[in-house]
Amino acid sequence: MAKKIGVLLSGCGYLDGAEIQESVVTLLAIDRAGAEAVCMAPDIEQMHVVNHITGEEMAGPRNVLIEAARIARGDIQEINQVSAADLDALILPGGYGAAKNLSDFAVKGADSEVQPDVAAFITEMLKAGKPIGVICIAPAVMAKVAQASGQKIKLTIGNDADTASALELMGAEHAEARVDEIVIDEAHKIVSTPAYMCQTKISEIAKGIEKLVETVLSMV
Amino acid sequence: MAKKIGVLLSGCGYLDGAEIQESVVTLLAIDRAGAEAVCMAPDIEQMHVVNHITGEEMAGPRNVLIEAARIARGDIQEINQVSAADLDALILPGGYGAAKNLSDFAVKGADSEVQPDVAAFITEMLKAGKPIGVICIAPAVMAKVAQASGQKIKLTIGNDADTASALELMGAEHAEARVDEIVIDEAHKIVSTPAYMCQTKISEIAKGIEKLVETVLSMV
Repeated sequence: MAKKIGVLLSGCGYLDGAEIQESVVTLLAIDRAGAEAVCMAPDIEQMHVVNHITGEEMAGPRNVLIEAARIARGDIQEINQVSAADLDALILPGGYGAAKNLSDFAVKGADSEVQPDVAAFITEMLKAGKPIGVICIAPAVMAKVAQASGQKIKLTIGNDADTASALELMGAEHAEARVDEIVIDEAHKIVSTPAYMCQTKISEIAKGIEKLVETVLSMV
Repeated sequence: MAKKIGVLLSGCGYLDGAEIQESVVTLLAIDRAGAEAVCMAPDIEQMHVVNHITGEEMAGPRNVLIEAARIARGDIQEINQVSAADLDALILPGGYGAAKNLSDFAVKGADSEVQPDVAAFITEMLKAGKPIGVICIAPAVMAKVAQASGQKIKLTIGNDADTASALELMGAEHAEARVDEIVIDEAHKIVSTPAYMCQTKISEIAKGIEKLVETVLSMV
């Protein structure tokens, strides 16, 4: 039977939701490996809506689940309808949505809180010892959940010193990595890659994400 | 110097805009080949906004260029700001946006009209003999533009009989193809692949799109 990999999306568009290119490259790598992606998102309002040309806020509201469904072609479930017990692994693409919708890290940094449904789901996967992949800024969500579970995990968000410090304030160990690299925490089965935390291009983020997916699947 | 490939987007989400997975796979294949993608879209309002979970219309309006910028991470130009003379080739991903925003094919079928800025741009590429790739339902836009230019072109939209008939009513020759195949019109330098016109999955559409991008680049 195909391995089932949860893909937790946070909207649709890197400035207010899930990073689209990272999300699609993740789905492609999962499918190419013969595994099944189970897309999901919380049914909550986005923090705000951002015009991706000007970077300015625009009229909302928009719903995280409904917008994320655009990436998943409608094949998506509300996170509370998915049982962690049914999944073999979980992957969180990045984008500001991870830090604005799945948590409030973009506003509060190390003092952030993770959205309760998201925190409960990731905690269950972590406690079950199932592998988790976190891309781009998603390690900020993972660090907070691990801290609340009393686990010191190793992660990368690339080489941004301020964000790395915030991760360490949340109890994680940060390791620098390039865009085409992954960092593996063998003990906790957590894999991370910087992706668009670096100034880079799509073929480069794909290298790191493909390694991440391959490694996550190998840990199942 | 890197080849410059225009990528004409029609919004963000397959039910009312550009098919996101097709668009990202196109951008990835272009970047991996060492070419440069020039994303663009018309600055017009979408026909409507569709909830990608329920398929029902929801509150709008949304702007095609602003929504398409989500896929392109803001690196996108209004179509009238791009000179066809500066591009080596053009690719149109699919999604209903091609048939709702770039043209009104979804409403009017063979009697459809192509949005004027889009029609003018594609006509200029066609007359200059530059290669054009059309994915999924985008051949419906291409057929209409070619008809207006008095050119009988060969295209595929897969194996949907009704859509194929509509293409032929617009003066094109339709050739059936599977999702992992491309159809090449050597004389007019037009390449097409069915992608999500077929019931399929992302690894399958990627096979056809990668062949399309490779072939378009080889024709430059």
